[in-house]
Amino acid sequence: MNAGEANTAAVVAAAGIGRRMGKRMPKQLLELGGKPILLRTLETLERMPEIGCVVVAAGQNILHDVAKAVDSWGLTKVVNIVEGGAQRQDTVWRGLAAVPEYAEIVMVHDAVRPFVSASKIRETIEAAAEHGAAILAVRPRSTIKRGAGDRIEATLDRDGLWEVQTPQAFRRDILMAAYAKAMAEGFYATDDAALVERTGIEVAVVEGEERNIKITTPLDLRIAAAILEEEG
Amino acid sequence: MNAGEANTAAVVAAAGIGRRMGKRMPKQLLELGGKPILLRTLETLERMPEIGCVVVAAGQNILHDVAKAVDSWGLTKVVNIVEGGAQRQDTVWRGLAAVPEYAEIVMVHDAVRPFVSASKIRETIEAAAEHGAAILAVRPRSTIKRGAGDRIEATLDRDGLWEVQTPQAFRRDILMAAYAKAMAEGFYATDDAALVERTGIEVAVVEGEERNIKITTPLDLRIAAAILEEEG
Repeated sequence: MNAGEANTAAVVAAAGIGRRMGKRMPKQLLELGGKPILLRTLETLERMPEIGCVVVAAGQNILHDVAKAVDSWGLTKVVNIVEGGAQRQDTVWRGLAAVPEYAEIVMVHDAVRPFVSASKIRETIEAAAEHGAAILAVRPRSTIKRGAGDRIEATLDRDGLWEVQTPQAFRRDILMAAYAKAMAEGFYATDDAALVERTGIEVAVVEGEERNIKITTPLDLRIAAAILEEEG
Repeated sequence: MNAGEANTAAVVAAAGIGRRMGKRMPKQLLELGGKPILLRTLETLERMPEIGCVVVAAGQNILHDVAKAVDSWGLTKVVNIVEGGAQRQDTVWRGLAAVPEYAEIVMVHDAVRPFVSASKIRETIEAAAEHGAAILAVRPRSTIKRGAGDRIEATLDRDGLWEVQTPQAFRRDILMAAYAKAMAEGFYATDDAALVERTGIEVAVVEGEERNIKITTPLDLRIAAAILEEEG
């Protein structure tokens, strides 16, 4: 598959209502270095020749604000802005329904991860084209333990662990089948790949970067400003 | 046990040589808001009535710099500055050997976690006094998966997972027995509690705070500055 083919669609999940941010404006529209977070994310996708189109799926309560903002930015690749559902998974599901027919690969990305690099997105798309499913992830920096209540049961072997990020990319047929099955069965997971895993498809990992943080709290916003400063 | 008894000793692990920081000065001595990171950490311990004494254990290659700095700060509770070993576990082990006899509880803390609050240290010490062993930990914010090579094997149930921080506190006899066993057997782990767990002792969890980060990279240092700014 030629990476320049523009056969990839991106679904950008702008679901969260930002309860933890403590602001009235949707967190996706908060400014970071004078530019809304969502715009930063969409600009990275806009610049990538592999990506043919972008669907923005926004939570019901922020749809109006997000749609108005995205329209005003005049990005050429955003083909649809759709109303999401109650949970992230519902929102992505509705976004998937709005992906144009020609897309062979679909990548799902969090709106509030503006620091992902084009090269890491590219690696993830290429891994999905090759293996069917791929996610970006980093090694946990901390020891991870499993517990029951407030007691530790075991310390997990850190070597095998991954801390999951987005984008996650899939062959379209694989992702649609996995979502259709999960939604039909009422199965909810915390990421898209988990739905694919339970259909028996193997998911590949592309090692990501620490700075691809998810901005969900006021502290995250300050951290994001620090990252931006470091890059500057 | 009365929490005001000053029967707790703190071992502060200032082990790392700071390879990832890319600076010549030990990362523990880098300034944050005009004050060395290690001094911030030690000042928090100095102010707590529960803590009777502090042992600083520093890696061999930074011992001279750390000892000189700690001496210059004139803290009343630092009773020993000892030379550590090749790995963090070796360093803590040597620190434990320098803990005064009277201490009934020993807490181990990373020098480069200056943002831990006195109240969370207190909760951890109290839980250790009650249960024998306790650690500070937070819920992972990301989905955690287990993999083999570059393939995902399973998505872990996030409900039971903990991301481990310090301090970790223990009844002195429990920690000494666990360390003696591990060192005799050449067993190395990524945290102190793992050594205690393998002796069959149950470890309690105290829910910590996000801001209790471990400062190990230049980006962490910027994040730390952002946290400091947020605290005002």
